Amino acid sequence: MTSNSDCLFCKIVAGDIPADVVYESDTAVAFRDINPQAPTHVLVIPRKHIATLNDIEESDEALVGSLYSAAREIAAAEGIAEAGYRAVMNCNAAAGQTVFHIHLHVLGGRSLKWPPG
Amino acid sequence: MTSNSDCLFCKIVAGDIPADVVYESDTAVAFRDINPQAPTHVLVIPRKHIATLNDIEESDEALVGSLYSAAREIAAAEGIAEAGYRAVMNCNAAAGQTVFHIHLHVLGGRSLKWPPG
Repeated sequence: MTSNSDCLFCKIVAGDIPADVVYESDTAVAFRDINPQAPTHVLVIPRKHIATLNDIEESDEALVGSLYSAAREIAAAEGIAEAGYRAVMNCNAAAGQTVFHIHLHVLGGRSLKWPPG
Repeated sequence: MTSNSDCLFCKIVAGDIPADVVYESDTAVAFRDINPQAPTHVLVIPRKHIATLNDIEESDEALVGSLYSAAREIAAAEGIAEAGYRAVMNCNAAAGQTVFHIHLHVLGGRSLKWPPG
């Protein structure tokens, strides 16, 4: 699977940097955000290095969709599935993307306001 | 493709209710939000009726991923791909989901704050 030796999240996937991992599958890894914005705040990332949403290719569609299967399972495990949760991906600076390996923020455990930032 | 005759977004997919459509593919339709929260605010929906993120099945993963291919193309067309954009899905009440047909909010054209709601 493509990885990037300079990428923080690739290092987490490889186990070279510790993280509070809550979910793993063949395609995805999820861990708690170190700066949580809600009682549940988990990042779901693909094992494959993809820098931004602009870099997703058609052949990655099932992989990207698998991040939502992960989110669904995490929400159930966290007890927030029925009350509700928000799933957010940021692309580039205007959205505040800081790690250039796509990641799905899953936030729940409180009411989330609108607009989403 | 599975649809629900009581669903507002299925009616938009069918062309029975007008919308400001900006993108169509075999799997997805996108149109401008009627209550935009940013200069670009588009909703990308699957043609197939899926009520919430909790209802996504493994066989839907490529379909869900295709919403991101749509988002990427829309961001490019809107001229916001490089500056950046946020992609948001809400599940159930705590996240403010009001139409129970999954939809990816794509917001850009301004700086988006953190947390995302």
